[in-house]
Amino acid sequence: MTALEETLATAPAEALSRMRAAVPLVQCITNYVAMTYAANVLLAAGASPAMVHAAEESGDFAAIAGALTVNIGTLSPDWVAGMEAAIAGAHGAGTPWVLDPVACFATRYRGQVTRDLAARRPAIIRGNASEILWLGGTSGSGKGADAGDEVAAATGAARRLAAETGAVVAVTGAEDFLTDGSRGLWIAGGSPVMPRVTATGCALTALAGGYAAIAEPFDAALAALMHFAVAGERAAATAAGPGSFVPAFLDALAAVAPGDMGLQRVRPA
Amino acid sequence: MTALEETLATAPAEALSRMRAAVPLVQCITNYVAMTYAANVLLAAGASPAMVHAAEESGDFAAIAGALTVNIGTLSPDWVAGMEAAIAGAHGAGTPWVLDPVACFATRYRGQVTRDLAARRPAIIRGNASEILWLGGTSGSGKGADAGDEVAAATGAARRLAAETGAVVAVTGAEDFLTDGSRGLWIAGGSPVMPRVTATGCALTALAGGYAAIAEPFDAALAALMHFAVAGERAAATAAGPGSFVPAFLDALAAVAPGDMGLQRVRPA
Amino acid sequence: MTALEETLATAPAEALSRMRAAVPLVQCITNYVAMTYAANVLLAAGASPAMVHAAEESGDFAAIAGALTVNIGTLSPDWVAGMEAAIAGAHGAGTPWVLDPVACFATRYRGQVTRDLAARRPAIIRGNASEILWLGGTSGSGKGADAGDEVAAATGAARRLAAETGAVVAVTGAEDFLTDGSRGLWIAGGSPVMPRVTATGCALTALAGGYAAIAEPFDAALAALMHFAVAGERAAATAAGPGSFVPAFLDALAAVAPGDMGLQRVRPA
Repeated sequence: MTALEETLATAPAEALSRMRAAVPLVQCITNYVAMTYAANVLLAAGASPAMVHAAEESGDFAAIAGALTVNIGTLSPDWVAGMEAAIAGAHGAGTPWVLDPVACFATRYRGQVTRDLAARRPAIIRGNASEILWLGGTSGSGKGADAGDEVAAATGAARRLAAETGAVVAVTGAEDFLTDGSRGLWIAGGSPVMPRVTATGCALTALAGGYAAIAEPFDAALAALMHFAVAGERAAATAAGPGSFVPAFLDALAAVAPGDMGLQRVRPA
Repeated sequence: MTALEETLATAPAEALSRMRAAVPLVQCITNYVAMTYAANVLLAAGASPAMVHAAEESGDFAAIAGALTVNIGTLSPDWVAGMEAAIAGAHGAGTPWVLDPVACFATRYRGQVTRDLAARRPAIIRGNASEILWLGGTSGSGKGADAGDEVAAATGAARRLAAETGAVVAVTGAEDFLTDGSRGLWIAGGSPVMPRVTATGCALTALAGGYAAIAEPFDAALAALMHFAVAGERAAATAAGPGSFVPAFLDALAAVAPGDMGLQRVRPA
Repeated sequence: MTALEETLATAPAEALSRMRAAVPLVQCITNYVAMTYAANVLLAAGASPAMVHAAEESGDFAAIAGALTVNIGTLSPDWVAGMEAAIAGAHGAGTPWVLDPVACFATRYRGQVTRDLAARRPAIIRGNASEILWLGGTSGSGKGADAGDEVAAATGAARRLAAETGAVVAVTGAEDFLTDGSRGLWIAGGSPVMPRVTATGCALTALAGGYAAIAEPFDAALAALMHFAVAGERAAATAAGPGSFVPAFLDALAAVAPGDMGLQRVRPA
């Protein structure tokens, strides 16, 4: 087996076991729409969420958290100050942090904030194809919060962004792409219902934080993508639509076992 | 058939087909309680929600959105600034906007903000009877966020408010009333469980935005009311209470077909 | 029967009947994560929630509300100003208020705000063991938003805190402890799934507000704890995990009858 194949064979299952044993504290600075869902996703999966955003305490909290996630979905100047304080606290304490550049292409303000955050050494960046295309320097066709581009169109931008920032980059969509600049993987699974539930991507970012608290960034992102892919597939099998998908998905996140995080859904790029 | 009867016979079904084909981008400035539910309602129904509120970007975003909705549920000065910037952006770009005057009668601050917003040419105003009574110049008996008045008591205030503001006015309750000042309609359906789910009215406002992006205000508001009425009725038939109603309702919103948006639930006032 | 036994035998059932008849207006200043769930819990249980937080109106609103609840989960300076204005309004109007000191031990800022709020005569304080230990002057082992201590370890701190503040103190966990400084009760019930749903404690605080609007603080807190204990037990019996627990729990809160609020789950400390 190559080093990559070895990673694939054991790392995701081990990461899930380790996360459930550690129940890591994950500080999420995320948007108003995603907060409840992201918290429930972390609790179901096996981590302990804490939504702490104000500059008065976000840096202190990042020093005790196992990981920090920063999502710009509903940003405003006060929150950006809180994000910056939290990232500074995270760097000071060696806490890894994850960036979710929601709709970074949509307005000038959003673009500026995202470029500034991306330069602050996130361990992982997770976005849809339109976001990663924009952040990787290519103009895509996203509009609003939903991707207007295919993941396959964003693999070059993802590799470039990884090389520039030092982050592991995950591009999520019908199939997900993961890269650290040199290695590249495709992860299959999930369901077409998932983009019809708001904050699905934001919640995945939160879960990447859960794994980043107990594993290296590449393995952490891979485990989060696989956990979502398996649970999404299972939930879709029983759900009657986007409404009943949500409880089924949370139940499935809790029920996924390490042995379910199997190689068969991953292929090298 | 009269012009109104023609509208009723075809407009709602056509609007649903058109919305699902266009998947319009709907900018929602709504309250913290409603955000997730409103976003999920729009996604289930067939539109693309984006919660963008900060003055730094809300005007820019309104120029690319298909419609804007403004809901004052959890207002504060920063958010009012964002609402005003968004409305200015919407006017500049010809984007229709929808006003939801949550509990406008409850405090002086809320009342002042609402009067100011209502004067900025919304395409649609959606409220409960107490809100429309207050905004139409009559003192009702609302208290907190829930209506203390019957829809039938608010039809005069609704017509007056429509004439004054130029907006189509929807008064929602056990039965809904819709008017543009001259035309008036009653829409039946839904379920008594709906007021026991928080943000049901706010989510309906968001959906009115989804339809306003692809239809004239009167037809848009009518389609949103009918879509809710049908889906609410169906969800209530299977739900065991207000908790199981939510996933069932979102599933039903996604499942409603244009042919379900039938005339039989509408009668002229 | 002792006075306490008489309370236990009739007060919770009477409180539920009275709350459902009055549908009290409960002003909740709570965190972003909890807002929707807390509102749905109040609506399902039989009260009318209103999330009104801005200093511009929170004091006015507290004067018309039946009760006020203040939860510091996602605090920031603007919100603290709104909390203080609301508490002042509540005191002016004789409106009881309930404090939820979420993760008060986690950062200096959080600790300062909590100590200040606790000194403003709340009628009820509800927290987990780590929060009550910290607030009662003992250092616990909480981290983030989840308790790291057993309820049994916090009974002394709870009695001390009740004596110091004049509040009834509820410590919630696998079993709940309630005290007014002299009386002490254990309430059994609920389910291990409940801490895997975010904002369960915050929603219980909101419900304590619903009951505080129509009953004395001790009886109100007891009724809220029992209502949650019964509904949680029932929901867990049908749920397949933390996701399906939520709709089942809301349905159960609505379905619990006064006769279900029975003595058998309560024992004196």
